[in-house]
Amino acid sequence: MILDDTIVALATSPGSGAIAVIRVSGPDALHITAPLFKAKNKTSLLDQKSHTLQLGNMVDGERIIDESLVSVFKGKRSYTGENTVEISCHGSPFIQQEIINLLLREGCRSAQPGEFTLRAFLNGKMDLSQAEAVADLISSDNAASHQLAMQQMRGGFATEIQKLREELLNFASLIELELDFAEEDVEFADRKQFQELVFRIQKVLGKLIDSFAVGNVLKNGIPVAIVGEPNVGKSTLLNSLLNEERAIVSDIAGTTRDTIEDEISIGGVGFRFIDTAGIRETTDEIEGLGIKKTFQKIEQAQLVMYLFDAHKIKNENLTLAQVKTEVEKIKNRFPGKPLLIVANKTDVLSKADQQNFQQQIQELHLISAKENLGVEALQDKILSFVNTGALRSNDSIVTNSRHYDALLKAQAEISKVQEGLNLGLTGDLLAIDIRQALYHFGEITGQITTDDLLGNIFANFCIGK
Amino acid sequence: MILDDTIVALATSPGSGAIAVIRVSGPDALHITAPLFKAKNKTSLLDQKSHTLQLGNMVDGERIIDESLVSVFKGKRSYTGENTVEISCHGSPFIQQEIINLLLREGCRSAQPGEFTLRAFLNGKMDLSQAEAVADLISSDNAASHQLAMQQMRGGFATEIQKLREELLNFASLIELELDFAEEDVEFADRKQFQELVFRIQKVLGKLIDSFAVGNVLKNGIPVAIVGEPNVGKSTLLNSLLNEERAIVSDIAGTTRDTIEDEISIGGVGFRFIDTAGIRETTDEIEGLGIKKTFQKIEQAQLVMYLFDAHKIKNENLTLAQVKTEVEKIKNRFPGKPLLIVANKTDVLSKADQQNFQQQIQELHLISAKENLGVEALQDKILSFVNTGALRSNDSIVTNSRHYDALLKAQAEISKVQEGLNLGLTGDLLAIDIRQALYHFGEITGQITTDDLLGNIFANFCIGK
Repeated sequence: MILDDTIVALATSPGSGAIAVIRVSGPDALHITAPLFKAKNKTSLLDQKSHTLQLGNMVDGERIIDESLVSVFKGKRSYTGENTVEISCHGSPFIQQEIINLLLREGCRSAQPGEFTLRAFLNGKMDLSQAEAVADLISSDNAASHQLAMQQMRGGFATEIQKLREELLNFASLIELELDFAEEDVEFADRKQFQELVFRIQKVLGKLIDSFAVGNVLKNGIPVAIVGEPNVGKSTLLNSLLNEERAIVSDIAGTTRDTIEDEISIGGVGFRFIDTAGIRETTDEIEGLGIKKTFQKIEQAQLVMYLFDAHKIKNENLTLAQVKTEVEKIKNRFPGKPLLIVANKTDVLSKADQQNFQQQIQELHLISAKENLGVEALQDKILSFVNTGALRSNDSIVTNSRHYDALLKAQAEISKVQEGLNLGLTGDLLAIDIRQALYHFGEITGQITTDDLLGNIFANFCIGK
Repeated sequence: MILDDTIVALATSPGSGAIAVIRVSGPDALHITAPLFKAKNKTSLLDQKSHTLQLGNMVDGERIIDESLVSVFKGKRSYTGENTVEISCHGSPFIQQEIINLLLREGCRSAQPGEFTLRAFLNGKMDLSQAEAVADLISSDNAASHQLAMQQMRGGFATEIQKLREELLNFASLIELELDFAEEDVEFADRKQFQELVFRIQKVLGKLIDSFAVGNVLKNGIPVAIVGEPNVGKSTLLNSLLNEERAIVSDIAGTTRDTIEDEISIGGVGFRFIDTAGIRETTDEIEGLGIKKTFQKIEQAQLVMYLFDAHKIKNENLTLAQVKTEVEKIKNRFPGKPLLIVANKTDVLSKADQQNFQQQIQELHLISAKENLGVEALQDKILSFVNTGALRSNDSIVTNSRHYDALLKAQAEISKVQEGLNLGLTGDLLAIDIRQALYHFGEITGQITTDDLLGNIFANFCIGK
């Protein structure tokens, strides 16, 4: 991979804002930018210390493009590990583009998605799993996915893998050394110690692989199927579930949910709600298809919320017996799936009615989404189905399917090594499997990479990072 | 206006990007931010020099929110003229909001639109017309509006007004001094010099007021009515007119125009194209209404482009005589309005046909929007109708209707002063009109402001600037 050119991109969100930041990185970052920037204090950017800011004008010859604030980061101390200039200009898309065009004309190249972070990786500023965490961090939209990305960016389990890899590499070298002395039948690698290492590696791998189930849902949001007829108050419920977080979210996204199929954050964890129809007994063919679809969606969900309208029961359009039948149907079909039964609009019920409801249906949650009654208890209940313990205990959690894949492959290879040790295989045979395991470890941290692999990883980044 | 609190806002465009910048300004900017930022080099922000950058973590107690780059600007040297901290964090909306929430909790207040620039004005970092130019700069979307905003931000005509105001103020003081010695009939203010000053002021005001017509269209785009039947190729024409600038615009906006009612930039000047129907003779009542509407739109336009389909004439669905009739109708109704007659799809015509067309209709432009033939010449022709000379000569141009209004009022008052001088009015009567003129001058530069006025001006800003 060649790093001899200088790249430029808009680093802030595209569109209009008060300011925008344009990032330039590469060997010529300072030399290209310096003649285009007239500092108020008349000093050239070339003579500025690293990590300082200068006010001045970005100019194209005599023409002033913008008054900008320019920061300089020299060499190893920058994000990319190479000379970097950040131009903080007025946030008009026109000005952003004028400055970028100017830099392109003067010898920069448009950065590819994630290319700044790719350079940080190639320049040894971070390992590959940390680089991948940068993209996760930028796309994190709740406390859990944010915490997972931060953890991975600070080293996460990659440090552990890296340490095990080094130990394993050490043994591999000793075993391969034995091969040179094959005639003499020596054992440089202490088989007992090696056995212990393999055991430790298996334990770590097992734990990390298991953590992916949790990590994956925390990162991508936990799918929850809401089963309920139209007008039972599904969107009202979602809006009130969202309530505690709304102040946080709405400023930026300006959200009022009018669709059920949406992700909301409860207690810092993302939940993806999937709207489904009810599953009332029917002979109608089309309705029958609807029920089939509902069952498919329940299948995909990690948690099912069955919602019915207490008001309808009071008006005798619906009976509790009907509700019970439907609930039983779900329970029978998905015996292991966590199920929450929720009666909405219970503000119309008398105390006696409420008690009657709860006697007839076990573990029933009475809420009024509109009046915000019982919603907090429901939130707690929803959260209780999620293993957030792992988050709190700060255990290593694997969230990246590429890492998961590499861990599984490493596990398979290590199992072969284990087997080989049990069978007393010779060093040359062991060495092959050890090398394979090392390879998969290296894939996670980036010691082993190919251009294709890097291309795939960084293609998912936004431009400018 | 109170400046004793510390304000915070997102300064970059909302949404997701590689990075985002959060701006904090006010007396406590450093004291609030310092405990929330753990620099890699262990130094507190309070001990950092102005205009330096530190890498570290934004923290909420023990919890790390993000790895951020924090810049410090101390006192008068900042944009606002007060202590300022800029936090460059990862561009996830979640992280942006977490950091802003943290700062709000620790004592900052959410900034109002334009409040940073308002503070810059109140702290004497810029005059009011410069502050207004900041908003214009951020919303500039072509070279002309950008240049006008830059000119105004660098002082523009406000400097000239400011100088005249001081001279006038000087005379006002002398004349008012005369009033104290009214009994003695002295003249401290030299009437001849004063006459000269008034004359100079009138000349400057006249020129500035005249410039508004140009400035206003350059800032807001020049309205062009395209008269033509459906399918004569109006959108294709607009897309090919846009062509030269597309490389510049499309990266950010990702534009392919599918509507005619749009603004495009030609030669750096914005044009607002207004789609209208043809005006063929009709007895149909509904079509008649359409023609009336077309005439209304032509009325509003500064330039009319009449577009017809050469292909249709070749197929004998239309005659050149019909075209001529329609063109005459527009000319008769709007004798002063610049009119461009354009035949599109002329790639189907033979050389002889083309000559025939041009003989029959004077000043006809033959183009093929699809094949991009004749489009460049048409662009030049369109630009020739715009007075871009003022831009090139770097003359002062008034673009702001508030300034225009104040200039008109000042002009009226100065005329009264002139009249008074001609009539040999006494100092006490002159002084009243002079004070009024001074008032309107002061409105432009901001020496005279009210909270209402400032509120109106800065309400049009984006938040974070």
